[in-house]
Amino acid sequence: MRELEEKILKDGEILPGDILKVGRFLNQQVDTDLLEKMGSEVIRFFHNDKITKVLTIEASGIPFACSIAEQLKVPFIFAKKSTSVNLSGKLYTSKAYSYTHKKEFSISVTAEYLKEDDSVLIVDDFLAAGNALIALIDIVKQSKANLVGCAVEIEKSYQEGGKRIRDMGIKLLSLAKIKSMSDNAIEFEE
Amino acid sequence: MRELEEKILKDGEILPGDILKVGRFLNQQVDTDLLEKMGSEVIRFFHNDKITKVLTIEASGIPFACSIAEQLKVPFIFAKKSTSVNLSGKLYTSKAYSYTHKKEFSISVTAEYLKEDDSVLIVDDFLAAGNALIALIDIVKQSKANLVGCAVEIEKSYQEGGKRIRDMGIKLLSLAKIKSMSDNAIEFEE
Repeated sequence: MRELEEKILKDGEILPGDILKVGRFLNQQVDTDLLEKMGSEVIRFFHNDKITKVLTIEASGIPFACSIAEQLKVPFIFAKKSTSVNLSGKLYTSKAYSYTHKKEFSISVTAEYLKEDDSVLIVDDFLAAGNALIALIDIVKQSKANLVGCAVEIEKSYQEGGKRIRDMGIKLLSLAKIKSMSDNAIEFEE
Repeated sequence: MRELEEKILKDGEILPGDILKVGRFLNQQVDTDLLEKMGSEVIRFFHNDKITKVLTIEASGIPFACSIAEQLKVPFIFAKKSTSVNLSGKLYTSKAYSYTHKKEFSISVTAEYLKEDDSVLIVDDFLAAGNALIALIDIVKQSKANLVGCAVEIEKSYQEGGKRIRDMGIKLLSLAKIKSMSDNAIEFEE
């Protein structure tokens, strides 16, 4: 998506440790105009699928899920990263390792929010190693709901996450695919 | 707001420890139809104020901030609860004690996202003791931006948070005000 790529080049910052900081417009301060356009793009891509729920993971996946779900007029769910006092009843739980935070964490969704007759779109801000998305996919499988596919704002396609998900036969839309990233240059896939 | 109150009575669950769980429609699974209507209500209330930014705190304040900011066509910002590798540069930081998680936590916003000429609306899902909102108010003060006011989805008005904020001379909108809550009954303010 051209507008997202241009925004990344203009306002993204490359930090040590292969980190692309997009806090100016995507995941600390959120440009709602861009957010809505990204949501519309996802809806266009999945227009043949009858999505009944959008699923993401707290916290930075929430704006994307929120915008897509508002446009689709369906509910969205965000998986929680820790078991909180506000989680009760039967849960679906999975584990993922975060390279950003350098630790394994559990994610949970209250079981009653995902039903067998749901068709679920999974979304997140970033796809790199793919661990968070794969944990969300595992949760959808546990629920026996139908998995429509996955959509991410930014894929680092030089990491293995995209391939892992496509190799599972899952439809995946990445709005910007970064082919390479160095100290002062970002190159996107065509 | 009548529709929110009815939803709380229908789908809210009272858990031990004075916890009102609203995960079915507000902060784990989000009813986007209700979310948009709540956003519109906030915009009507503050229609004389020229809001340039909406500020909240991760994670459960994000959907409300997102919907309001999308409708206003302005950016929103969510304060982070821990210093992460993705936070860099000058930060505004404040501290708050969470009764839900029984610990003090720091919240931070990258300084460049809040400017002196911004007019900021602070929003969150819950207002009880008021600590999270007051930490956000502190951050807005540090930035020297103009504080338009605060809006929350649910205020527990039998706790002191609402009074603390109104006593500071800050405009506060609570879409549902819970006057009392017991094991099996919730009463709202008129």
